[in-house]
Amino acid sequence: MSVTAAAGFRAAGVAAGLRSGGGPDVALVVNDGPQAAAAAVFTTNRCVAHPVRWSKAAVSDGVARAVIVNAGGANCYTGAPGFQLTHATAETVADDLGIGAIDVQVCSTGLIGHLHDRNAMLAGARAAVAALGADGEQAAKAILTTDSVSKQTAAGGDGFAVGGMAKGAGMLAPALATMLVVLTTDAEVDAATCDRALRAATRSTFDRLDSDGCMSTNDQVLLLASGASGVSPPYETFAAAVHTVCHDLAQQLLADAEGAEHEITIEVCGAATEGDAVEVGRAVARSNLFKAAVFGRDPNWGRVLASVGTTAAAFDPLNLDVSLNGVPVCVASTPAAGPDRVDLTGRRVDVVIDLKAGAESATVWTNDLTHGYVHENSAYST
Amino acid sequence: MSVTAAAGFRAAGVAAGLRSGGGPDVALVVNDGPQAAAAAVFTTNRCVAHPVRWSKAAVSDGVARAVIVNAGGANCYTGAPGFQLTHATAETVADDLGIGAIDVQVCSTGLIGHLHDRNAMLAGARAAVAALGADGEQAAKAILTTDSVSKQTAAGGDGFAVGGMAKGAGMLAPALATMLVVLTTDAEVDAATCDRALRAATRSTFDRLDSDGCMSTNDQVLLLASGASGVSPPYETFAAAVHTVCHDLAQQLLADAEGAEHEITIEVCGAATEGDAVEVGRAVARSNLFKAAVFGRDPNWGRVLASVGTTAAAFDPLNLDVSLNGVPVCVASTPAAGPDRVDLTGRRVDVVIDLKAGAESATVWTNDLTHGYVHENSAYST
Repeated sequence: MSVTAAAGFRAAGVAAGLRSGGGPDVALVVNDGPQAAAAAVFTTNRCVAHPVRWSKAAVSDGVARAVIVNAGGANCYTGAPGFQLTHATAETVADDLGIGAIDVQVCSTGLIGHLHDRNAMLAGARAAVAALGADGEQAAKAILTTDSVSKQTAAGGDGFAVGGMAKGAGMLAPALATMLVVLTTDAEVDAATCDRALRAATRSTFDRLDSDGCMSTNDQVLLLASGASGVSPPYETFAAAVHTVCHDLAQQLLADAEGAEHEITIEVCGAATEGDAVEVGRAVARSNLFKAAVFGRDPNWGRVLASVGTTAAAFDPLNLDVSLNGVPVCVASTPAAGPDRVDLTGRRVDVVIDLKAGAESATVWTNDLTHGYVHENSAYST
Repeated sequence: MSVTAAAGFRAAGVAAGLRSGGGPDVALVVNDGPQAAAAAVFTTNRCVAHPVRWSKAAVSDGVARAVIVNAGGANCYTGAPGFQLTHATAETVADDLGIGAIDVQVCSTGLIGHLHDRNAMLAGARAAVAALGADGEQAAKAILTTDSVSKQTAAGGDGFAVGGMAKGAGMLAPALATMLVVLTTDAEVDAATCDRALRAATRSTFDRLDSDGCMSTNDQVLLLASGASGVSPPYETFAAAVHTVCHDLAQQLLADAEGAEHEITIEVCGAATEGDAVEVGRAVARSNLFKAAVFGRDPNWGRVLASVGTTAAAFDPLNLDVSLNGVPVCVASTPAAGPDRVDLTGRRVDVVIDLKAGAESATVWTNDLTHGYVHENSAYST
């Protein structure tokens, strides 16, 4: 149930002293092969951290043999010393593993504008190489920031495995990968296959998770393939396993979002296009008013429609259906069952919006807007 | 200092029993002429309330002689009886005033999906006509919902006046008018001039106020011109007075936003186009993370840059400047003065973002994200 669920991988998590309060803060995952195919998706934010710049270039040849992740500093907007530290980190890992730095992916997470200590980081990298083993637990713990629990998963195929770990508890807004995720597989797949399966999976999982509408500067979802199983699964089989681990990790991220008291599933059906469905789902997912209402257990479907109306999707404003937790509260744009029939006391809230304009659909996930969210995010850097 | 500051207008505010908790909830403003030029801007939300549908059609001929506003129900997504009530309300006012219903604008505010009581509404309309007088105070009070204070203003020109009142304390997101505003003038101006001046003024005032990113279904900004002063000011003079009252009311709305503890002014300069500047300002204004940080008095400029990076504006991500309350915290995308030098204890927060890509600029206003916002909006309809 971790990045080491797939054969050919070792992992480590060590405490390098980067994280205030202590605990493991440097994770390393190494692909011992025989193959080293890799693919990654990154944040589409134009303001990105140094590790994203480095990793985009390093993975562009479809090869990666290791990934090092640190908490305790995003290394974003840290000036020239920031890029130098990313580079030196990759070099240090590479030297100790006897590989090239260009085959080392680097991820960082923490406060923007804060450069973590260079000596501590490089010592941590060396310690992580020395600590490599079959257990992925410490690695999964070392990458967390405000997460309350570690996120790990694994899925099996016919003779091959896909494993994974993730961190992320805020800034979960999409436009590609929106958190740090390391996936591993022992399937025999080339980089192009990894890329295709990864993009297909992230598109309908991480990319549709929109916790707070904010896009991070540091996100990376990386898939490493060792080929150690000797099994070359059909594409659909492989892609299904990659989708399974992505979906599972995305749901774990949703469940652990900062301060959240509800997980909200927004299903938009009857759309003319899938793009319309996603646009409507995202608009509702970003309505602070609706999300605050859910926190208050108030089935305020008017705030759903007010968000739907901000989109360019095809629909007739006078013929929309909305249901909340299975209760039709608005039918043909007219009030239906009374809000007193809707029970929002549980953690799960299902919103279904029928645009009655076609046969396409999409699901977007979000959380409620709570006092806990405001509290956690009003006291982060200080 | 109200809608009756301009000659030729009478106003009233009465308690019709629509508002839970009592108090005035129906406002009426009547233009006694001699002229009846009018212009209005409406929410660009596609899901709109019945009064918006009615008023858009009614004002399309550039004539309006009265506007009736009710709190206690938005009359949005209330089915056919909702439109019938809007129509009947206009008819009732028109009958009692001896004018045509098509010259009566209607505005409603309150909960979506809730239809206020028909008999109470129509009785309130009649009572409002009977109560018409020179004092605009009661009208300004009757239109409030979660507002804590009434918003009124007036500006003078050479022999003419512009007055106004507004309501709005949430859902202040733009794409045109974003609240209920009634403006009056005794200048001799035709409907086309009213329209031109009103659109120019709202574009840089109400349209750049983005309290919580949520767009209302009911917004209307209406300008009524009586010509009672007998003065025909030059366009620039008239437009300047309209801009002054719009800016003043917008700032009053900003200061009274639900739960807000800070007013945040986001000035984007060095932009290639004004559109770029607005896009960047709006992106920052909608960052829950940045707004929560301001609530916590945390000068977290990384969250500013993370929002800037989500836009398509022209800029070099490695050459951005940010200052907070006059302190340069990021220069050329590199940390500058320490955050400990930034004092966010006051209500006013000034963010300046220099894109270094041109000579255009724009200012967007927003509020912080607070426990008060979550509290007010999690317990509204129930």
